[in-house]
Amino acid sequence: MAKIAILGYGTVGSGVYEVIKTNQAIVNANAGEDIDIKYVLDLRDFPGDPVEKILVHDYDVILNDDEVSVVVEVMGGVEPAYTFVKNALLKGKSVCTSNKALVAAKGPELIRIAKEKNINFFFEASVGGGIPIIRPMKECLTADDILEVSGILNGTTNYMLTKMADEGWEFDKALKTAQDLGYAERDPSADIEGYDACRKIAILTSLYSGKNTDFEKIYTEGITGITATDIKYASAMKMVIKLVAISMKEKDDKGNEGIVSMVCPVMLDRVHPLYGVNDVINAVFVKGNVLGPVMFYGSGAGKLPTASAVVSDVVEAVKTCKNEYIGWDAEELKLMSVGSVRRSFFVRMKGSEKDKLAEAESIFGPVTVVKAPGVDGEFGFVTGEMSEDDFNGKYEKLDGAITRIRVNQR
Amino acid sequence: MAKIAILGYGTVGSGVYEVIKTNQAIVNANAGEDIDIKYVLDLRDFPGDPVEKILVHDYDVILNDDEVSVVVEVMGGVEPAYTFVKNALLKGKSVCTSNKALVAAKGPELIRIAKEKNINFFFEASVGGGIPIIRPMKECLTADDILEVSGILNGTTNYMLTKMADEGWEFDKALKTAQDLGYAERDPSADIEGYDACRKIAILTSLYSGKNTDFEKIYTEGITGITATDIKYASAMKMVIKLVAISMKEKDDKGNEGIVSMVCPVMLDRVHPLYGVNDVINAVFVKGNVLGPVMFYGSGAGKLPTASAVVSDVVEAVKTCKNEYIGWDAEELKLMSVGSVRRSFFVRMKGSEKDKLAEAESIFGPVTVVKAPGVDGEFGFVTGEMSEDDFNGKYEKLDGAITRIRVNQR
Repeated sequence: MAKIAILGYGTVGSGVYEVIKTNQAIVNANAGEDIDIKYVLDLRDFPGDPVEKILVHDYDVILNDDEVSVVVEVMGGVEPAYTFVKNALLKGKSVCTSNKALVAAKGPELIRIAKEKNINFFFEASVGGGIPIIRPMKECLTADDILEVSGILNGTTNYMLTKMADEGWEFDKALKTAQDLGYAERDPSADIEGYDACRKIAILTSLYSGKNTDFEKIYTEGITGITATDIKYASAMKMVIKLVAISMKEKDDKGNEGIVSMVCPVMLDRVHPLYGVNDVINAVFVKGNVLGPVMFYGSGAGKLPTASAVVSDVVEAVKTCKNEYIGWDAEELKLMSVGSVRRSFFVRMKGSEKDKLAEAESIFGPVTVVKAPGVDGEFGFVTGEMSEDDFNGKYEKLDGAITRIRVNQR
Repeated sequence: MAKIAILGYGTVGSGVYEVIKTNQAIVNANAGEDIDIKYVLDLRDFPGDPVEKILVHDYDVILNDDEVSVVVEVMGGVEPAYTFVKNALLKGKSVCTSNKALVAAKGPELIRIAKEKNINFFFEASVGGGIPIIRPMKECLTADDILEVSGILNGTTNYMLTKMADEGWEFDKALKTAQDLGYAERDPSADIEGYDACRKIAILTSLYSGKNTDFEKIYTEGITGITATDIKYASAMKMVIKLVAISMKEKDDKGNEGIVSMVCPVMLDRVHPLYGVNDVINAVFVKGNVLGPVMFYGSGAGKLPTASAVVSDVVEAVKTCKNEYIGWDAEELKLMSVGSVRRSFFVRMKGSEKDKLAEAESIFGPVTVVKAPGVDGEFGFVTGEMSEDDFNGKYEKLDGAITRIRVNQR
């Protein structure tokens, strides 16, 4: 029998408890031995709750119990989670976590300790909630040179953008509704500013590059600038606007290869695999040099889907007698500048096409004009393909520019 | 260094050779040791080809070479593949195969021998080509009671149905084009009659149920009955027709639980996750009791994607020192009758709505009439939800019935 401890009895922690109890026989069979929750750690008391009898407030009880072989960390945040996890690993206990902040900040060190101790540090639930993506990347896509990992990694903003497109809602109404439904926190900045998606794409980039990706160096632009009018233009072009987290191998102007990563709203056309990913669904798109594109799609958040991914890590940790090495070194990945990424750009401009198109084309060269029904006093256009740097230089010169949104993925 | 042999130098076999040579450094790093192709077995000669020097015509050379630790079987068909694979396993060599006919027919026995010999029999490429689905099901979706595995598992028919919908082609033109493009064989029956999808859903059903699924007992209906007119009706309803392979846990009228599996054309509406899966793309949809729905999407066939999946199995076979047990017993799964599956049905009927609707409603109860632009002398309708058995009894009584197609997935 494998004894485990759950650190944190919040949304995900109570979900982990529920998933194990609900599917106990299946979980035991898959793990090859019975899994028993010996402790739940939380500062709070839960009188009358089933965990009441196994609840502890002092982490040392868990740390010093040699019977506990797997620790589930679902507290969130870097501290005290980091200290707790590190000490568990040093004591020879495998750790499974859903904590993307912890993994993005401290991944390589915790992976190294797990390797040294010949145990495991697993974090499937830290990206894409219930969608299996980390284990498939490390254990299934092993014959390929991974050229791109991109995706819709934040359910809250995807819900908001879906509602803005389908219902014509303004940003504020979409945010308020997302908050009312419990998708967005009262301080929604981690979602709407793109910080959450940024940490997740940093983790995925570290995994496929093998080097540590500093999430603070990823160009990140959220959806706070996206308006109902922008979406009218997108609809007129039969496109959708999605918050896409992108990581891909690119060549710069001098032919140097590198990885470029960014999080930003992108207009996607109907043939793009992420086009139909709506509501709180997440999807991760991976492109291999021989495999071509594959996509993983599912519930990117939510108590039970996230808990399902955590418990599948617990099953793997119990089943596996040795370290499954995850190639993610402490050496920092030098990200390539986003300035060299080439694509088209959608621009909104004050004035009429008649008066201002010539000026726009004198700066950008030939553009495709876009008209959105019911939008007056301005017009939109899509540029030809150019680099970010090139575009930014030109956009600065444009008199009457309202906004710009990247088109497609590259 | 791990020495491997490839049995069969056809499309997939030459792809496996190409993938290993192209991505040799990546493959070696992921496997943890160098992978060297020592032999290629084929009856033919390939003068001037890079494999010329390692080509053998006699399987015993491979079988009796103790240096060969992994055998890749990509010949297709049950014999002689079965004999070759069985003998390799008995000699203690792991086997990786893309051969769905072999896996569907002989899976449990080969899995048992691999377990007894503490080696591995892997078959990721046998379902969904390059899409990782078998390993994710066995190693990632381990916290869930799997309630449903359904998908678009045949690229040829999906290409044909996509073209019929997008271009208005008749069945014969779609088939001819698929053959010209090399998607369909000269004898296309395995694709268009649904036999290929049937073997694949049998494999997936065996994997999640743990018992052996006899593919001959799966209700299978291909796309040969689908016409351009059917698709006009589907378009009028903003639906698409897809060849869907379905396997799900159901309860019959008496409350008995079981698994029902079928392959048939189904009309899907726009919110269905398989709605947007077009061309030769395959997708597998899995529903867990706590995870909810996840979907795996990618190239379901093709030389390099399939070879990528085979090589990922080779990497896993080399990396793994012991048997990774796949719970698929020889005991036969007793499939539940499809007769109890409840859903709506689309029906085409000769005559006019004015003359014949009352008759239809006297048999089926209230129906929703569907009109397709440019289709005269007949009309269509969608029934309420009822069981297959119930529907079939009623449909037999309908005078002037042209065809019927199942609607949605349940």
